[in-house]
Amino acid sequence: MEVTNKRILLKDYVLGPPKESDMVASSETVRLEVPVGSKAVLLKNLYLSCDPYLRTLMNRPVEGQEVPYFTPINPGSVITGFGVAKVVDSGHPDFKVGDYVWGLTGWEEFTLISNPETLFKIKYTDVPLSYYTGILGMPGMTAYAGFYEICSPKKGEYVYISAASGAVGQIVGQYAKLLGCYVVGSAGSNEKVNLLKTKFGFNEAFNYKEEHDLAVALKRHFPEGIDIYFENVGGAMLDAVLLNMRDHGRIAVCGMISQYSLEKHEGVHNLICLITKRVRMQGFAVFDHYHKYDEFVETTREYIKEGKIVYVEDVVEGLENAPAALVGLFTGRNVGKQVVVIAQE
Amino acid sequence: MEVTNKRILLKDYVLGPPKESDMVASSETVRLEVPVGSKAVLLKNLYLSCDPYLRTLMNRPVEGQEVPYFTPINPGSVITGFGVAKVVDSGHPDFKVGDYVWGLTGWEEFTLISNPETLFKIKYTDVPLSYYTGILGMPGMTAYAGFYEICSPKKGEYVYISAASGAVGQIVGQYAKLLGCYVVGSAGSNEKVNLLKTKFGFNEAFNYKEEHDLAVALKRHFPEGIDIYFENVGGAMLDAVLLNMRDHGRIAVCGMISQYSLEKHEGVHNLICLITKRVRMQGFAVFDHYHKYDEFVETTREYIKEGKIVYVEDVVEGLENAPAALVGLFTGRNVGKQVVVIAQE
Repeated sequence: MEVTNKRILLKDYVLGPPKESDMVASSETVRLEVPVGSKAVLLKNLYLSCDPYLRTLMNRPVEGQEVPYFTPINPGSVITGFGVAKVVDSGHPDFKVGDYVWGLTGWEEFTLISNPETLFKIKYTDVPLSYYTGILGMPGMTAYAGFYEICSPKKGEYVYISAASGAVGQIVGQYAKLLGCYVVGSAGSNEKVNLLKTKFGFNEAFNYKEEHDLAVALKRHFPEGIDIYFENVGGAMLDAVLLNMRDHGRIAVCGMISQYSLEKHEGVHNLICLITKRVRMQGFAVFDHYHKYDEFVETTREYIKEGKIVYVEDVVEGLENAPAALVGLFTGRNVGKQVVVIAQE
Repeated sequence: MEVTNKRILLKDYVLGPPKESDMVASSETVRLEVPVGSKAVLLKNLYLSCDPYLRTLMNRPVEGQEVPYFTPINPGSVITGFGVAKVVDSGHPDFKVGDYVWGLTGWEEFTLISNPETLFKIKYTDVPLSYYTGILGMPGMTAYAGFYEICSPKKGEYVYISAASGAVGQIVGQYAKLLGCYVVGSAGSNEKVNLLKTKFGFNEAFNYKEEHDLAVALKRHFPEGIDIYFENVGGAMLDAVLLNMRDHGRIAVCGMISQYSLEKHEGVHNLICLITKRVRMQGFAVFDHYHKYDEFVETTREYIKEGKIVYVEDVVEGLENAPAALVGLFTGRNVGKQVVVIAQE
């Protein structure tokens, strides 16, 4: 059976913040079958995930420069990212037609996955399937590993989260609250700040765009300093945090969204505080922690069912709206985890 | 008994690199006795230690700004730093006349220490006493804690040390070689580079002043990347290292001598590498590790006696030459650990 497969391609390497015109809609005809004898699976994509790291895959390659661990996206290629999908054909013994999965897929209606070992099978469907782009998928696992493994958190500690209403931040804040930490988040609008305080139960939150001096804002919220910083932003925010860390503090470096669109990243000037405060600053990547996925999903699903953790998604309908949704991450338009619905099940 | 006590005072807060004229010689008359009923000890200083961190104590205080963990030095006060001394009077039960000690003392001939608990008693005098300003004192303990505790080193790993011929760097490099690591150091003269390769047994060394592009130099010495960076320098060196780190690398942040004389520290632009390489970067301070001092001194003394570790000192005679010796640290004039002899024993 042949069908039309609508897709979103990268048009050209991106310079500066991503624009809708950096991407282009296209279509092709595909057979809804895996090649005979292959171990591939054919996915019908249901939900796509807009994540900040995608921007880092869209740069023109520079010789000798750091290559990100996810495969860069070349102009003319379909955009690849995380998504939730249904198996519509399978040559792999571990996957059968009708299985729900999440993992790396394409920004298109149907994707042939030649290495299905990279996909996670979805065990629990008593939560919204879209949650596997967020709280029960890559961002959730990122929050879990970053907070519990990298931050070495203890009850009663002072925790600060930037981009706190985003896909990862909102979960980290709720994990920290459940552990008995004092949690403050920052975000870029009063609506988001309100969400942090009312919906997610943060102790305090502030709109960083309304602060003249981030270091002063942090000092106001953390008069005794910050034990744990969950870093999603980078640049000037990191500099302000460094000045406010407590002795033996920890910084989990998850992302630096403020820097991804800059040709040269901003300089960070206060690293001396790592010495004076004896701070540990540690970068991490979710895939180093996938062996904890089952533990994470059991724990977090329980929290969701018991109402101990809530999750806010910003849902956009239609593949054709995916480019605008991605662009919106970098202007802060999304409120909560940005999801794109490709097909309803 | 009253004697004249020659001293070196800080003249005014220091701006930029330290100059001899920032310090001034002075003298006072002191009684060679501790006050009746006090638990103080009176020290006759033998060796003083010139350490880069001293510069950070000489800044004009800025409101709201980071205060270093050592007490800042005020203009008109005697300079305080590490030294080796002999007890000439004692009101403290743990110290008796004739004991040799090392710890924080004054840049003067005699110092009354009102909190002698901060001093370390010297157990072994079968090594040069001046070693307790270096390899068996604060810098040695710094190297030991920084390398074994912070770097999580493993045999066969690639280790890079900046300011590698200095008081701390030369020891770190030799510990790393003893563990079976591949060790490269950088320094600021060909004489020092030669010392690293011939005397300390580093695998390779380079003169950073002769390199146009530090990142390229590191790539040449570490084609497979750096597992462990022992950071003594900061700024542009750190930026170059970040680009060359291996996955799961560790950076022990011991010092940033290139930054101490700057009013605003240079920006570091490549922190994104902490994420892409999942690097842990950790600041530390020696006094958090003093509980390991006995273990350290036993181990390191054995290494010295067996000839497995050597130590190079740059010895200057006379308290009056201490300011020039300190200044020399910041122009790279010293070759090895900078020591000032106050009195011979």
